[in-house]
Order: sequence, then C-alpha cells, then structure tokens
Amino acid sequence: MLSDQQLLRIPGPTPIPPSVQRAMSQPMIGHRGQETKELLKSIKPKLKPIFGTEQDVAIITGSGTAGLEAAVVNTVTPGDEVLVIATGAFGERFVKIADAYQIKTHRYDVEWGEAVTPGAIKEYLTKYPAIKAVFATFCETSTGVLNPVQELAKVVHSHSDALFIVDGVSCIGGVECKMDEWGIDLLVTGSQKAMMLPAGLTFIAASDRAWKTIEQNEQPRFYLGLKKYRDNLEKDSTPFTPALSLLLGLEQVLTLMNEEGLEQIHERHRLMMEMTRAAFRALDIPLLTSDIAASPTVTAIKPADFEAEALRRVLKEEFGLAVAGGQQHMKGEIFRIGHMGYCSPADVLQTISIVEISLRKIGKDIELGKGTQAAQEIYLG
Amino acid sequence: MLSDQQLLRIPGPTPIPPSVQRAMSQPMIGHRGQETKELLKSIKPKLKPIFGTEQDVAIITGSGTAGLEAAVVNTVTPGDEVLVIATGAFGERFVKIADAYQIKTHRYDVEWGEAVTPGAIKEYLTKYPAIKAVFATFCETSTGVLNPVQELAKVVHSHSDALFIVDGVSCIGGVECKMDEWGIDLLVTGSQKAMMLPAGLTFIAASDRAWKTIEQNEQPRFYLGLKKYRDNLEKDSTPFTPALSLLLGLEQVLTLMNEEGLEQIHERHRLMMEMTRAAFRALDIPLLTSDIAASPTVTAIKPADFEAEALRRVLKEEFGLAVAGGQQHMKGEIFRIGHMGYCSPADVLQTISIVEISLRKIGKDIELGKGTQAAQEIYLG
Repeated sequence: MLSDQQLLRIPGPTPIPPSVQRAMSQPMIGHRGQETKELLKSIKPKLKPIFGTEQDVAIITGSGTAGLEAAVVNTVTPGDEVLVIATGAFGERFVKIADAYQIKTHRYDVEWGEAVTPGAIKEYLTKYPAIKAVFATFCETSTGVLNPVQELAKVVHSHSDALFIVDGVSCIGGVECKMDEWGIDLLVTGSQKAMMLPAGLTFIAASDRAWKTIEQNEQPRFYLGLKKYRDNLEKDSTPFTPALSLLLGLEQVLTLMNEEGLEQIHERHRLMMEMTRAAFRALDIPLLTSDIAASPTVTAIKPADFEAEALRRVLKEEFGLAVAGGQQHMKGEIFRIGHMGYCSPADVLQTISIVEISLRKIGKDIELGKGTQAAQEIYLG
Repeated sequence: MLSDQQLLRIPGPTPIPPSVQRAMSQPMIGHRGQETKELLKSIKPKLKPIFGTEQDVAIITGSGTAGLEAAVVNTVTPGDEVLVIATGAFGERFVKIADAYQIKTHRYDVEWGEAVTPGAIKEYLTKYPAIKAVFATFCETSTGVLNPVQELAKVVHSHSDALFIVDGVSCIGGVECKMDEWGIDLLVTGSQKAMMLPAGLTFIAASDRAWKTIEQNEQPRFYLGLKKYRDNLEKDSTPFTPALSLLLGLEQVLTLMNEEGLEQIHERHRLMMEMTRAAFRALDIPLLTSDIAASPTVTAIKPADFEAEALRRVLKEEFGLAVAGGQQHMKGEIFRIGHMGYCSPADVLQTISIVEISLRKIGKDIELGKGTQAAQEIYLG
C-alpha cells in the first residue's frame, strides 16, 4: 500500500481542506488582542446563514458533547420533565446528560435506522403537558438517519410550550437548516463534521424564547453558561481562552463555504448521498435507512451476506480507506460511509470503486463497476 | 465544485505526501551545521538503491534541466561528437543543451509514442566512431514511453567507447533501475516526479568510467561542476547552499519509500499503468504507445473522436482534476495522465471514473463504469 495515504470516509472527523490546514498553521496570536477581535467579528455574521438564524452563534471550545450538555444545563433544572427522541446512539447521549442532572426524562425510542414520526410526538406532548423541552437529533450519526426537524418543530410548538432543542452535530453545514423559520429553539453543532475542521469547537445558537429560559434558569454551571458566550460575543470576544488555531481555520472554512455557496454545498451533499445509495442498490446490498429517512452526510449499509467488519478491514489495510462500523447493538451489523464536509462526488466514486474491489476480496460475488456506474449515472442526472 | 480540492494527475509535479509536507515545514537549520551534516549522512545511502548504484548520488539544487546540463558540461567539450536519441520533447532538450555548448550533435529521432530500437543505435555507433557520449531518455514524459535503457546500454558499450547518459527524471523511483549492472554512466533525475517532492532538487550519479571523463573534462563550469558535489558529499556536505526544506522532505520521502519497499513501489507503478491502459482499452479509446513501450509512470491517450482539450477542461472545471495535454506537435492531439509518486490504485480508479463522467459530458457515448471495471479487474489480477 502507498505509505502515508489515508482516505478518511468516516462520519467525522472528515478530511481538512489544505487551505484550512494552512490557516490553522499560522503563528499563535493573543486571544485578548485586536487581531482575535477582528477574527471573531469576521466569523460572527458568516455562521448565521449556516444555522439559518439571525441570532449570534456562540462558539464554545469543546467537543459536540459539551454543546449538548450546554443545551441541557442552560434550559432545565433537576426535576424538570423533558422528552428525548432517541433514534440512535447520539439521541441516547441526551438521555445520559439529562440523567446526570436528575432531569426527569421521557424517552421516546425509535428503531435504529428509522426516522421519528412527528405524529407520535404529538401524542406524547398531549399526554405529558409538563414537558419543558424536547430534544431531538437532526442527523443521527449512528444510523445515517435525518430526522424531520422542521415538522417536529411544528408539532412541538403547536402542542406544547416546550423548547425544541436540536443536536445538529453531524449535518449542520451539509444540509439546509432554517432555525428561525422552522422554530428550533436551541441548535448545536460541532466543528469536525460538515464544518471541515478538527474537533474542538462546538457551536450553539438560541431563539429569543430560549434566551428567556436561559436567563431565568438557575442550574449551576460555569464554563457552559451560554449567557457568558453571548455577552462576550457581542463585544467580539470569548469568555474563556478559545482554541485559537481552530478559529483561524474556521475563518478559512467560512471563506470556502462562501466561495462554493451554501445552496451548492447542500446540493453536493444530497448528490453524494444519492450516488452512494444508488451504488449499493445496484450492487444489491441493503441500505439501513429508507430514502425518506436518509441523511445527505452519512450512509449506513447493512450487509445481508458478508461481514461488515471483514470489508472494513480490507478497505483499511489494502487502501488506507477508513469507514465506520456500527455502534452498540449495531456493531458488526452495519458499516457507515461519511460523505460530508471536505468530500466530493469524485471521492464518493473512489470509495465505491474501492469497496467493489474489496467486496470481491472478501469473497462476495458482485459485478465490478456496477456500483460505480450507478453512481456515475446519478451524477450525470 | 468542492472548493480547495485539487486532484493532480499530471506527470509531475505530483502530490506531496502529508508527512513529507510536514517534514518540509520544519524550522530552517543552518546548512553548514551538524544537523545538516547528519541529514545528508542519513540521505546518502538511501538514494543509492533507487538509482541501483554503489556510487554516491549528487544532490544539486536546481530543476531537472540543471541536472541534464550538468550531464553535458561535465562530460563533453565543444566540437565533441555526441548522439542524442530523441523520442520526444525531453530528448530534444538534450539536443538544445548540447547545441548551446557547440557540441557536434547527431540526433536520432524516433517517432513520438514509440520507443527506440537498440539495433538502430548500433548502426549509428558503427557509422560514427567518434561519438563520445550517447544521451537517452529513460521515460519520455511527453509521450509516456519507457525506452529500453538496459538494452541500449549493452549496445552502446559493445559498439563504442561512448559514455551512456540517461535522463531518468520522470521515472526514477517508480521503475526498477540498475545503473551499475546495466552500465549507465550518468543518470539524472528530479525531485518532483516519482520522488514525491516539489521541484528544486536534481539527483545525478556517475559511473567510475564517467568520473574519469569528468575529472579530465575541461569545459568551463562552476555551479554544475559535479566534482564539487562529489567531494563535498564525501564529507556529508554540499558545495553551495542547498534547498534545505527539500532535503528535510527528501529524508521523509526516503523513509516512506523504505517503509513501502522499492520492489513494492515498482509493482504499484506497473499496476497503475496496467489499470489505466486497461480502462481506456475497455472504453475503446486509443493509447498513444504500445504495451511494450509504455511507462509505468505516465500514460498518453490519443482520442480518435473527441477533443482532448475539451475533456481536460471538464475534468478541471468540474472536478479540479488536472491531467496534462500534449506538447509541441502533439498539442491537442493527446492527453497524459500521470500515475507516479504519491499516487495509488485508488487514485487511478478515481481518475478513471471521473474521466468516464467527463467523456459523457463532452458528448462521447461511452458505457459508464466500463473503464473502471476493467481497471478493477486488473487490480484483482
């Protein structure tokens, strides 16, 4: 194998664009100086359209989980009732965080690989009128499901006064999101997925309604107190030392995203999803999710007659290509291909053509080139 | 198109491995200090097997042409007769250099796309016994031809006392070379091809016979005087300021090459050539060279019924994929795909699948996936 070649097709972290890598290699600057002020001033307006909000987007130095925890500790207090819609491993993370804070958690489980049906949530909200917040996962990384957050928001708001809080870690930047218009009260994402950065930053925006709750909320918190971030951001500053190299990279990511155009980026992600799905369909290998539930950022494949782990091994050892396995009870049952952020249709074609070879290597009798061809046809439209 | 993605598939420069890029980003060190001495000491023995020689390989800061000029000005003087075997644009470069120094040049032209026949050279040498040096191109970058230098060396040595001087710029590192065993008297290569570095270094080794000529040669020269490089290299030094970041990168390139293994590297290049050729054959698109004359590092394609330049334009604009056009009279007639250095079979598959899409985009009616499939079959053997 060619030394030093790593093809990273897991659902985050994703490869870093060369110009972003260069931006992150700039010499350190003081985080209380004028240069960092200018940096934050430049970044601030450019994050808003990615979230689809007029609100400032707070930048917390931490991983996505820190952002999810911030969403919890700023909005609810022990004994409060919340509903967590768990469609996979990352939905469960909300449950664990809420449990850690003695929040009374109603857990609505959806079978892994399926999206939540907004109607079901309606019943829940009617039955438990004390629910103060509904937590949902936009893209469930563990299954490649994109939940219908726009419809969920509508249901939540028409049947309760609960805040609608969304984990958008593995899709924001890669899919359309209209936080304000749809009625998302709190939206969280991370830096290492469609945002094309290494992990280390989490982004969070809140609606006016959510800010009211946050301001009144008395849950003890310090580092994750959102008000601090908002008040500092107003002065183009951060409350604590920021991961400065990531901010330098973020500035360049936003330049690249602006160059390509948000709509074009969303279209590219949708195209990569369709190419990937068409390829596996052509090879007669089952997909975990239905078309309607599929995320433009990650695709889970559920082999019927070969070992997912055997395939992953060949891909890694023979080509340096990393795809993800299944999590929890899906371990060994599925494998997941990330196609988000710094990933192109050309990369998807490369992945598929390598998967085809590797399938043959593990003894699965497929027609070479058939998946590639199907993906090419989708590209040509 | 995904911003910032460049797929570089021209026959040099080639992409730089990430670890080499990192090595080149190290802080500068003094080129007369102990650290550079250690660096050269470590590099020196590792270059030899790549050339297939027990001689030290001189490292000159300059492009490949500087190496070719060094080959001329160290071995012949005005009025000397030489034979240049010109199989393409880079064979002609030897002619131009020799002309600049008033060397009496016999030029043996071979049709572009064909390799030289050693038998023809035999006749030449018998007819012109005064010929002091024979210049040949190992891989002719402009056509993707690999000339039979082993056989040429045999013919030169059995029919003359001439030095056999070889331009190996676009293949050394990617193909087997046994300089000593085959009888190459002077071998030159550059850094930006199969050596996986940016341009800026040229490497040159000379046989004992060649060194005798070099020592006696009175052609005026300064920077390109090979004796200076040899004498300094013996003391792990360079006669002039070296391109130090490239030396730091070279050290890492040699580590990577050692990790993969020279034989495996040659096998990878042969495989990439065969995959590329099989793909275009399957698509019924003519190759410029015959199998026997084909180079493992670059493939020239000669379309019969579409515009090479139109295809190149779509590849670049739609996918950021750069392939080379034709040079001189081949301009517009051919396009050339580089598959050398930091390039893997996975990259070849990506290139082919993109070429297939782009062919359809310019209106050429091909069966999608057919070329990819042929390349996959070659990979699986």
